Amino acid sequence: MLVNGLPAATVGALDRGLAYGDGVFRTLRVADGQPVWLEEHLARLAMDASRLGLPCDEAAWRADLAALTLPPQGVLRLTLTRGEGPRGYLPPHPVRPTRIAACWRDELPVAPESGIHARVCRLRLARQPALAGVKHLNRLENVLARAEWDDPAIQEGLLLDQEDRVISGVLSNVFIWRGGELLTPRLDACGVAGVTRARLLRLAPEAGFPVREADLGLDDVLAADEVMCCNSLIGLWRIARLEGRAWGAAVVSGALWNLLHA
Amino acid sequence: MLVNGLPAATVGALDRGLAYGDGVFRTLRVADGQPVWLEEHLARLAMDASRLGLPCDEAAWRADLAALTLPPQGVLRLTLTRGEGPRGYLPPHPVRPTRIAACWRDELPVAPESGIHARVCRLRLARQPALAGVKHLNRLENVLARAEWDDPAIQEGLLLDQEDRVISGVLSNVFIWRGGELLTPRLDACGVAGVTRARLLRLAPEAGFPVREADLGLDDVLAADEVMCCNSLIGLWRIARLEGRAWGAAVVSGALWNLLHA
Repeated sequence: MLVNGLPAATVGALDRGLAYGDGVFRTLRVADGQPVWLEEHLARLAMDASRLGLPCDEAAWRADLAALTLPPQGVLRLTLTRGEGPRGYLPPHPVRPTRIAACWRDELPVAPESGIHARVCRLRLARQPALAGVKHLNRLENVLARAEWDDPAIQEGLLLDQEDRVISGVLSNVFIWRGGELLTPRLDACGVAGVTRARLLRLAPEAGFPVREADLGLDDVLAADEVMCCNSLIGLWRIARLEGRAWGAAVVSGALWNLLHA
Repeated sequence: MLVNGLPAATVGALDRGLAYGDGVFRTLRVADGQPVWLEEHLARLAMDASRLGLPCDEAAWRADLAALTLPPQGVLRLTLTRGEGPRGYLPPHPVRPTRIAACWRDELPVAPESGIHARVCRLRLARQPALAGVKHLNRLENVLARAEWDDPAIQEGLLLDQEDRVISGVLSNVFIWRGGELLTPRLDACGVAGVTRARLLRLAPEAGFPVREADLGLDDVLAADEVMCCNSLIGLWRIARLEGRAWGAAVVSGALWNLLHA
């Protein structure tokens, strides 16, 4: 693990990342000792940071990654906070951000070939356009939602917002295939705009799958021909079972999986 | 500063307090070398922690405070996180929480006798009943709202929610005096339920000021006879100016100030 480019296991206890969740992060898959989809993650990290008015030094991240010994297979987390500063909410000027690059060996989640089982979370996401789409450090909603179940047979929980729109999974974005169209929830009021979601939005049409962002309810998901969740670690998983509804063999999910891993 | 009872300036870089804002805190005033309203803060910290399913060891906090040399006047912050654990949102079992007790000398905000100037923030708070009232570490909304102004003549910003209800200040709770009644926003969908607010709710009726929680709009605030904000550091400040509206001498604010500091 590197903190601001130096080997370290700790950060200042007054770091604003801890005091207020004042920062952003990305979670990347590591394969063959290399971070996967790095360019997209760095671009997204910088974009999210700018949403918080936080500078993101891309060259420093690249130097960190060059200095870090990544495992053959595993997980890499890049965290950027607003660092330390005087007590209080007012962001310090100048800001001295904290960069944390941490990796884990062999921590990739695995799913059965036959698809995963998912549930619908009781927690409803708050709608906050000022933070929508950003992978920031204020993730208590995800923590509370994930704490709703401990059945290891259930791999993901579906999150709806306060207005009962489907937004995402607890740790993934969601796509449905319905009527010859790929649909994914709009993320203008809540949710995290993942890199894998962006890839699918870009690649699916080129492969002949029309795709668009939409307002989706739970009924839309349950009525879909196929339901999938995706993130940078899992790639794409098809959902085989959700709240009593079961889906059989999946054609589009498989094609999209191939598309992502081409 | 103490971390888990030992002198330290750092916490683990993988602490869930930083990774997800998975924790709670309280900010106390220190006067004559003693934390003010300690019992209420510890009770509130434990209550907030239980909302997150987080154990709060009151005896350990008391031992920390006995071991810490507090300044004559200043600020004390108690932070409790879910500590470290395996990667991912799922809360670890058993949990090994992180306690951070940090103090600052002479950092108490001061306000002019004639009252403070406030503004209305553009940011609208998200409505999240699962976290409403809790002083948790997910405070990006406060950070973004506080970043809206840097005019030192403005001491506080009024926060409305997505449905245009007045909820609080960026760093305080709000009361208005109107028609012989003290009103404060209901905090069942957002906001932080401060210890000073709870004190006023309890003490004001005993002193002859009827008080109740209510849904308030900006119009209600602007039409009020007196407007006040309060927290554990400032006690109670009357607002003298807000968005073009000015208030003169304040009778009730003064009486409530005396009540808090009796």
